[in-house]
Amino acid sequence: MKIYDIENFPNPLRVRIALAEKGATDNVEFIPVDVMNGEHRTAAFLAKNPQASVPVLELDDGTYISECSAIIEYIDTEFAGVPLTGTSPKERAIISMMQKRAELQVLDAVGTYFHHATDGLGPALETYQNKEWGIKQGEKARQGLVYFNQVLGNSQFVAGDKFSVADITLFAGLVFAGFAQITIPSELTHLIAWQENIAKRPSIAG
Amino acid sequence: MKIYDIENFPNPLRVRIALAEKGATDNVEFIPVDVMNGEHRTAAFLAKNPQASVPVLELDDGTYISECSAIIEYIDTEFAGVPLTGTSPKERAIISMMQKRAELQVLDAVGTYFHHATDGLGPALETYQNKEWGIKQGEKARQGLVYFNQVLGNSQFVAGDKFSVADITLFAGLVFAGFAQITIPSELTHLIAWQENIAKRPSIAG
Repeated sequence: MKIYDIENFPNPLRVRIALAEKGATDNVEFIPVDVMNGEHRTAAFLAKNPQASVPVLELDDGTYISECSAIIEYIDTEFAGVPLTGTSPKERAIISMMQKRAELQVLDAVGTYFHHATDGLGPALETYQNKEWGIKQGEKARQGLVYFNQVLGNSQFVAGDKFSVADITLFAGLVFAGFAQITIPSELTHLIAWQENIAKRPSIAG
Repeated sequence: MKIYDIENFPNPLRVRIALAEKGATDNVEFIPVDVMNGEHRTAAFLAKNPQASVPVLELDDGTYISECSAIIEYIDTEFAGVPLTGTSPKERAIISMMQKRAELQVLDAVGTYFHHATDGLGPALETYQNKEWGIKQGEKARQGLVYFNQVLGNSQFVAGDKFSVADITLFAGLVFAGFAQITIPSELTHLIAWQENIAKRPSIAG
């Protein structure tokens, strides 16, 4: 299989961590997409993903799968190893819910802040900005950090006592927050301790 | 199990259609949430779902599950009947991707239009509005209708040749679009024919 992406961007990072957790990185050919020069908006790329976003997974039969949650669920079922999306219906539902909250409250909110309230990827790519909305989403992201600090005061991982895709999504959200210069307040000790722990995993520390 | 919701709202509709498709509606006790009077923002409700959104599923052991995609996946695995979220990893990935596109491009875009560019649920509930952003999301929703018209020109259902949760999400998005007075242009004949077909299903027509 192939993955079209750009290294170090937040959503590609999610898929790369998931692959490493499954020990499956070597099964994938990575094809760089020149996002900074707008390759993701060319007709050739839009034929792969009309949403114009990376990463995109290409299966061996030529099927293209976009959206991180879909890509990671595919990786999780396709490769052996510890499950990232849960096993029982209840566990799967809790992980799915917490991953969605990590997207809404942190990763996506930070993304909107970055693309609308800062210079983002620069004037050639940020063709429409709504600064007020971006600032509002930055506030939402800061509230999200407080929420997840509470969650991580009560459990070792985002969705309970096992590492899951919800941890990957929140971790990528915090990487993006750092890049966008949204700092984690020092009083959010549970969140900071969790982030330090997650950063030590071989899938991330290498 | 219990579901806290408000009938006829778009996200509750998704879960109610899924339950009806699985023949499982009678297994659920529905508890109305007085959203119009702000019950979803009370401390009692926030303890169930800190996102302050309906629907919320309560399992028999007291676990609360929010986020439609998580709730419907739980329902799909918990009850017998035709699968709504796919079976093979590839099929599941395509359905998950297309459902996410139906959320991003139609349902959520219409929601932002409704809450920001119109009176929405009224001044008591719409405490912050960004009209310009709402209008922009309305344009995105209209582009989403064009995209799904193309999709439905090539396949019978949103994620291929089987009815799935992706159809439920798009259908709810079109119901919301109608409520928000975003009309489907008459030239989008594939989308309109699909909508008419879906509306005849016993899970919707009753």
